[in-house]
Amino acid sequence: MTLKLSRLLPLILLLPRVIFSQDTNDGYAAVQLNMDYLWTLIAAILVFFMQAGFAMLEAGLTRAKNVVNIMMKNLMDFSIGTLIFFFIGFGIMFGTSNGFFGTDGFMLSDYSADGDPWTLVFWLYQVVFAATAATIVSGAMAERTKFIGYIAYSAVITAIIYPVFGSWAWGSLFHGSGWLENLGFIDFAGSTVVHSVGGWAALAGTIVLGPRIGKFSSTGKPQAIPGHNMALVALGTFILWFGWFGFNAGSTTAANSDIAGIAVTTNLAAAAGALAAMITAWISIGKPEGSMTLNGAIAGLVAITAPCATVSPLSAIIIGLVAGVLVVQSVLFLERKFKIDDPVGAVSVHGVCGAWGTLSARIFHIGGFSWSVLGVQAIGVAAAFLWTFPTAFLLFKLINKTIGLRVSREEELDGLDVGEHGIEAYPEFEKTQY
Amino acid sequence: MTLKLSRLLPLILLLPRVIFSQDTNDGYAAVQLNMDYLWTLIAAILVFFMQAGFAMLEAGLTRAKNVVNIMMKNLMDFSIGTLIFFFIGFGIMFGTSNGFFGTDGFMLSDYSADGDPWTLVFWLYQVVFAATAATIVSGAMAERTKFIGYIAYSAVITAIIYPVFGSWAWGSLFHGSGWLENLGFIDFAGSTVVHSVGGWAALAGTIVLGPRIGKFSSTGKPQAIPGHNMALVALGTFILWFGWFGFNAGSTTAANSDIAGIAVTTNLAAAAGALAAMITAWISIGKPEGSMTLNGAIAGLVAITAPCATVSPLSAIIIGLVAGVLVVQSVLFLERKFKIDDPVGAVSVHGVCGAWGTLSARIFHIGGFSWSVLGVQAIGVAAAFLWTFPTAFLLFKLINKTIGLRVSREEELDGLDVGEHGIEAYPEFEKTQY
Amino acid sequence: MTLKLSRLLPLILLLPRVIFSQDTNDGYAAVQLNMDYLWTLIAAILVFFMQAGFAMLEAGLTRAKNVVNIMMKNLMDFSIGTLIFFFIGFGIMFGTSNGFFGTDGFMLSDYSADGDPWTLVFWLYQVVFAATAATIVSGAMAERTKFIGYIAYSAVITAIIYPVFGSWAWGSLFHGSGWLENLGFIDFAGSTVVHSVGGWAALAGTIVLGPRIGKFSSTGKPQAIPGHNMALVALGTFILWFGWFGFNAGSTTAANSDIAGIAVTTNLAAAAGALAAMITAWISIGKPEGSMTLNGAIAGLVAITAPCATVSPLSAIIIGLVAGVLVVQSVLFLERKFKIDDPVGAVSVHGVCGAWGTLSARIFHIGGFSWSVLGVQAIGVAAAFLWTFPTAFLLFKLINKTIGLRVSREEELDGLDVGEHGIEAYPEFEKTQY
Repeated sequence: MTLKLSRLLPLILLLPRVIFSQDTNDGYAAVQLNMDYLWTLIAAILVFFMQAGFAMLEAGLTRAKNVVNIMMKNLMDFSIGTLIFFFIGFGIMFGTSNGFFGTDGFMLSDYSADGDPWTLVFWLYQVVFAATAATIVSGAMAERTKFIGYIAYSAVITAIIYPVFGSWAWGSLFHGSGWLENLGFIDFAGSTVVHSVGGWAALAGTIVLGPRIGKFSSTGKPQAIPGHNMALVALGTFILWFGWFGFNAGSTTAANSDIAGIAVTTNLAAAAGALAAMITAWISIGKPEGSMTLNGAIAGLVAITAPCATVSPLSAIIIGLVAGVLVVQSVLFLERKFKIDDPVGAVSVHGVCGAWGTLSARIFHIGGFSWSVLGVQAIGVAAAFLWTFPTAFLLFKLINKTIGLRVSREEELDGLDVGEHGIEAYPEFEKTQY
Repeated sequence: MTLKLSRLLPLILLLPRVIFSQDTNDGYAAVQLNMDYLWTLIAAILVFFMQAGFAMLEAGLTRAKNVVNIMMKNLMDFSIGTLIFFFIGFGIMFGTSNGFFGTDGFMLSDYSADGDPWTLVFWLYQVVFAATAATIVSGAMAERTKFIGYIAYSAVITAIIYPVFGSWAWGSLFHGSGWLENLGFIDFAGSTVVHSVGGWAALAGTIVLGPRIGKFSSTGKPQAIPGHNMALVALGTFILWFGWFGFNAGSTTAANSDIAGIAVTTNLAAAAGALAAMITAWISIGKPEGSMTLNGAIAGLVAITAPCATVSPLSAIIIGLVAGVLVVQSVLFLERKFKIDDPVGAVSVHGVCGAWGTLSARIFHIGGFSWSVLGVQAIGVAAAFLWTFPTAFLLFKLINKTIGLRVSREEELDGLDVGEHGIEAYPEFEKTQY
Repeated sequence: MTLKLSRLLPLILLLPRVIFSQDTNDGYAAVQLNMDYLWTLIAAILVFFMQAGFAMLEAGLTRAKNVVNIMMKNLMDFSIGTLIFFFIGFGIMFGTSNGFFGTDGFMLSDYSADGDPWTLVFWLYQVVFAATAATIVSGAMAERTKFIGYIAYSAVITAIIYPVFGSWAWGSLFHGSGWLENLGFIDFAGSTVVHSVGGWAALAGTIVLGPRIGKFSSTGKPQAIPGHNMALVALGTFILWFGWFGFNAGSTTAANSDIAGIAVTTNLAAAAGALAAMITAWISIGKPEGSMTLNGAIAGLVAITAPCATVSPLSAIIIGLVAGVLVVQSVLFLERKFKIDDPVGAVSVHGVCGAWGTLSARIFHIGGFSWSVLGVQAIGVAAAFLWTFPTAFLLFKLINKTIGLRVSREEELDGLDVGEHGIEAYPEFEKTQY
């Protein structure tokens, strides 16, 4: 019953092109290119799914009265981000650079549905990265941000803040090049480009917003505000880990043998991060606390993102272990010393561990170590902070003065779900008051 | 420690066949075929996972007392659908056609586990499509349908209703051909074949069943019956979006460069659908309501399913925007004017937006527009309704007269979980009465 | 705007190697190898995601007061398992065998990030299998096991119990060989190697622990302890089914045409398992009960794991049907006759159906049947029990005597989340007392 012939027809039609070409390797190259498209697409799909992971993680770590708001923020920063990155962001990041940012390539303008497949699949892979940077901020600003203000922020980071920095570090992937990569800065899959940029924007957001009502006592002592659903937190963490294989191994944008080693270092660092965070929490708090441990896995993943392609498996374990210790200490430090209220620990997980991972890419580089190249990494880490934090801070201040960034006290106490979206997440279940 | 030699052995054994063949391109073709199998399998796996998305979406949009029933319906329409499509449906859809439906190819009868791989992987890809059509109906009939009646319906749509229409539009994929495709009807991945067929069967089901107790006031005014868990709704939406990349880009059933553009148009339309639905809801209802917005993303995905391979990225955005507006208006219209109680909006999302998407495939076709080809699309859209709605209507009437379609008033009020399945979904949580 | 040239550069650089080689098929072989790495990686990612499935399934089938503990066990048996399998387990399983277990290949010692890609991706594929065996045990021991005791057990099964048996059945995949495979034992993807080993260790664990407080009345009658969230159970089941395509079809570790048939038999057996379990429960209990049916799907998947590559689609249906009947009867039998308290049915699903599947691989082998080869399968099934049950039993006894295996009565009644981890899973929701 099979139609093998018609199945083979497209291949047969290609044969003359191959036979009469000067060598027979066109066929080989064409198949390899198809496979590169395929892997880049599959990796993009995996990274897309990380949006679900972030949504579940953030919702689980916050209160039931704000779940609809969190889901809407996560859905809309991806949806609006997709459109903004199509119209503006991608050209800023990968267009011909004027030295500071790209200036063409907007709207995939030369590409119809049967246009150049490489550009199309590359755009898809990049848009899911851009949306990751945007969505990191959502968690740090959870439970008190006006929806319209969040939408405005989200559009600007995807249009300008993220792609400008991206053009410095990754712009040459298409044409032109960026000053950071010209210096020799390496950030294979985006510990700095994606995660630290998201983390420092999150820091700006949480500072401008201020802490949630009740987060700090009148004497300034941090109060625990437990998340409402640890099953969602765990699910989100597993989804993120799952998608991260696409984030790191997909950054080859080619189905070559490098993907094997990248996936191994990624997995080892995540495991080590979870273990180290659990032990650190056990020592610091007295119990192997759940949310810290889950954040440790993500911290390991953030850290290995830059070095995943250029370190040994053993180094990956060390990188993850350090990230797991770092994230717990950083969360406690920011909360206690700086009165930062970051409900999901986004600044520590993505900002701090992103910086650590970027430095580690040279410290543990299989090609050897030198202080000068480590210095270049430090320049990149600093540049990410010095570009992102001030611009995001100004942006949030501007939103605050105009359309407003924080909901009213009454709305915050009642929950954003009813106030902003007119529905409850769990209308049938009896809840205690928070 | 590696066994590279044994790893290469199968390849080495193939070499003589390649070397002594008349050209060296057999090797190329063989590798490309392996890649086509691989991508079709991976896409099938992604589409399979959409079953989880539908289950979460439907459960989240309905009440806690019916969750077990929803999960059982979703699991069983896939499980029974798999077996029925193996024994009957696949042959009806893809067997040699008698002009109306296929008549052979049942039970993959010629294919053992080492049989023709193309038939096997193609069957898997098709069975997950068939199950999608079946499961769409589940949501519209939620919270009041007898389990045994649903099972009976589900078997018939997978055995007959879906594959007969499928043979008209897609039958030639194997052999024979269908009258709709002979006219020039195009529906690349199934806006009509899968989604509208599911949507119109859902319409028939909800009409035969009638609304849930309490859905309309004594004066006929629609009453909101809020879903019990918006986190599940969002999770379901993300899972569906994730799986839809396999649904659309996998419909090439080949790992060629077309998958890139298809994935891009798919993503753009989904994003535009979410945005448009949010704005439409904001205007209509006064708030950026959560479940409408999430349904908008799915509406965009349904609409782009037919045109995904043959429209530009900009056109995809327009198609998605229209779908997002359409789905909100259609949900409100069906509820207010026709007193249709469709708890998840399945008729609007899959039926209406499926029809829109199918028309849009010609309106925005990169090859240009003509009224005559648009007319063919309209014929296909009409044929889907004229075939599906009456047959499904009769089927539901027949079930109603025999084994029964609707649970008793008492069981509906108490919930189907205890009545039909003997367990509760959330036995430990205190619930308000609904 | 595209950089097609730089994109093609790596391919062009390869051409001389290909052209001047003695035949042009090196290019073909290289692309096929890349595809084998790619598929093995993708399959490993799918199997990794099964960890989320097991976590959701186990959490859903148990009580709200133990959810954090379950998530932590699942995260940590994967995280610690990853590290232990890196340092110890992989070498024991795949190193040069001393006849009983492997003795080299620890720590991927020869492999940096740019080391042999086959070893790296094979390791990743194996570590997710090892973690599956470990995590199966978690469910059977749920709601009463000390966290530190579980961690200790988990490390030992991943370091020794699983890899030693694995070296007997699969060790030759690298070098050396195992006595079971030398006999002709076949277990394509691990019905015995992974699932029965996990199931028999689970049996040992639940016997040493004893039943949960309240599971059996004073007269020894089993009492139902309902799971707290059936939506999570269904989600977990769908995730497991999704990942299982990677588990079975990925066990080719090659992107060849065999994957098609394997995926088809896998899907058919799962569907048949769900159907048979539903009907069996309907007859035994009077209702199509939800958790039994969901377990039936998993039972079908466990059973088809060994025979998936060597049976016809029709045989796969029979294998799944038998598994679905078997799992319901086994759960009821173990509970009623042996007073085994296995909260998720892990012993029946993985132990019993794993044994059935392994035998079925010869009973339904497309190459024909003989009693002698079936005898070899029986030897393998028996060896798995005789190795795993006693060693795991001793291990649990040892843990019990030293660091302790069971929490205190008070902690069990209050829940392990607060006792072991200091947080609640759902602090805001009102709960009835259990």
